[in-house]
Amino acid sequence: MAVYTEVSDDDLVRFIDGYALGGLLSCKGIAEGVENTNYLVRTEKGPFILTLYERRVNRDDLPFFLGLMEHLAKNGLSCPTPVRDRQGAMLQELAGRPAAMVTFLDGVWIRRPRVEHCGAVGKALAEMHLAGHGFALRRENALGLAGWRPLYERFRDRADEVFKGLGAMIEAELAYLETNWPRDIPQGVIHADLFPDNVFFLGDRLSGLIDFYFACNDVLAYDLATCLNAWCFEPDNSFNLTKGIAMMRAYDAVRPLEPAERASLPLLARGSALRFLLTRAFDWINTPEGALVKRKDPHEYLRRLHFHQSIASVSEYGLEKR
Amino acid sequence: MAVYTEVSDDDLVRFIDGYALGGLLSCKGIAEGVENTNYLVRTEKGPFILTLYERRVNRDDLPFFLGLMEHLAKNGLSCPTPVRDRQGAMLQELAGRPAAMVTFLDGVWIRRPRVEHCGAVGKALAEMHLAGHGFALRRENALGLAGWRPLYERFRDRADEVFKGLGAMIEAELAYLETNWPRDIPQGVIHADLFPDNVFFLGDRLSGLIDFYFACNDVLAYDLATCLNAWCFEPDNSFNLTKGIAMMRAYDAVRPLEPAERASLPLLARGSALRFLLTRAFDWINTPEGALVKRKDPHEYLRRLHFHQSIASVSEYGLEKR
Repeated sequence: MAVYTEVSDDDLVRFIDGYALGGLLSCKGIAEGVENTNYLVRTEKGPFILTLYERRVNRDDLPFFLGLMEHLAKNGLSCPTPVRDRQGAMLQELAGRPAAMVTFLDGVWIRRPRVEHCGAVGKALAEMHLAGHGFALRRENALGLAGWRPLYERFRDRADEVFKGLGAMIEAELAYLETNWPRDIPQGVIHADLFPDNVFFLGDRLSGLIDFYFACNDVLAYDLATCLNAWCFEPDNSFNLTKGIAMMRAYDAVRPLEPAERASLPLLARGSALRFLLTRAFDWINTPEGALVKRKDPHEYLRRLHFHQSIASVSEYGLEKR
Repeated sequence: MAVYTEVSDDDLVRFIDGYALGGLLSCKGIAEGVENTNYLVRTEKGPFILTLYERRVNRDDLPFFLGLMEHLAKNGLSCPTPVRDRQGAMLQELAGRPAAMVTFLDGVWIRRPRVEHCGAVGKALAEMHLAGHGFALRRENALGLAGWRPLYERFRDRADEVFKGLGAMIEAELAYLETNWPRDIPQGVIHADLFPDNVFFLGDRLSGLIDFYFACNDVLAYDLATCLNAWCFEPDNSFNLTKGIAMMRAYDAVRPLEPAERASLPLLARGSALRFLLTRAFDWINTPEGALVKRKDPHEYLRRLHFHQSIASVSEYGLEKR
């Protein structure tokens, strides 16, 4: 969305000299990305992304994020890979911010995903889950089940400003999810934010996944539920069953879903819808109108939540129960 | 500063297919540039800049701007060159906006110019002025002498909101400049906005000039005066004579300044300082606080104007009178 931190030319040249990437050829601030400052840097070795981590990112999490990208890439996933500097470090400091250089991933993100894109995403997500095996670091999901109620408390008194009845609805849903959340279900490293703008395609071929800055350890099938919400609903908020089936079957073909995962999918989808409803409602209340950042409509996720509440079994999504 | 117009993936692919540039590899919105939407596009043929012209740019001016870049590049100036599509056109339409693809220029802009940068800019400006010879189209300077009074009229009633006495000061200066503006002095195509962010360097070597969207026909030495204002004042608004001499001598070595141009330089520098004072004061008054666009301080140009008002002859800038 915007460049938050300006880098002086002297600092930039000194920073680039710390890497074995040849001379600096160009550096442009990128407009995409709301959390951090991103520059598209070209050196004699090619294009790279330089990220300066802004305040919203916890510095202590950076070794997890960068280490994960390196681990996933080593295990065959196509994703940006941190470049190590001449001393072997992945994390540097620039303009008073933690900073890292990662490889540039070709591709563009798809504004209007079609069925084949949804299938490709399901496959890539399963591949990511397999590639995440054996990663040594852990990170709790700050926006997982345990984080939802505290987040809600922060705007409870103003929830009905978003729309009347939102507070009561959230409280009922929180109570339901806290009681029924599955315990014995495969966990691992999840992306946790695999929306269309984080998946690149070259033509119809998926070229890679980006933006691992919400990645964490959590229920693997919850990640799939998030993708169903992010990719398989139409602009009118109706669920496209064909897209959902394509995504789930492609996932299942790479990493077969266990019976417990299948059975939990409607509940996980409710949880994921609530998670984005909560953050969007929070941002809606706390972002002044006309601000730099465009507010995302919480209603989209309310509609998704209602949809999943109406689902009795995974077979209604078009996946066998088993 | 921001991407104003989003382009759908289908539209983008169709647009790129209109050029003989191979397949699309990536497309990132660039955060720099306040007037237009810019994307850094990579195709199989390399990197390019895709510009969508927003409302502030007059569509009728685009053939002048694009034609000028092509003309200057043909005459040896290093600057972005419009890419012609398969039909030979430089101007297209995309997402409801006029759009053009230009070649990508390596280099970064210098946040804190040193003497050698100022010399390089003087030389490049003179080269641009020579390269502009013979360009067939004409464009009046909307922000030249004739445009200042009408611009002032638009905020006269609120001028003293910027600071007390600004209105009276502008009126006196306008009267002086209108009476004393030089008539018989070389004219040609000028850049008119050659600030540090429009000049790229690779190391200490100037790699090219960009952003010709203020270019027009006007007094050539006025362009040099604008560069003196833009490059040779320190952050405390003091004039750095060493930088000024380096710039003027480097210019003069490529395109010798005529006696009338030398004699007029203090007056042209006053005019240029007033021009930026006027636009900044106008924007200051008309940009709400906390808006997307960062307001530039009008005081900087008031200080420059006062400085040039105190100069009796070009020799005080360190250039012989002749």
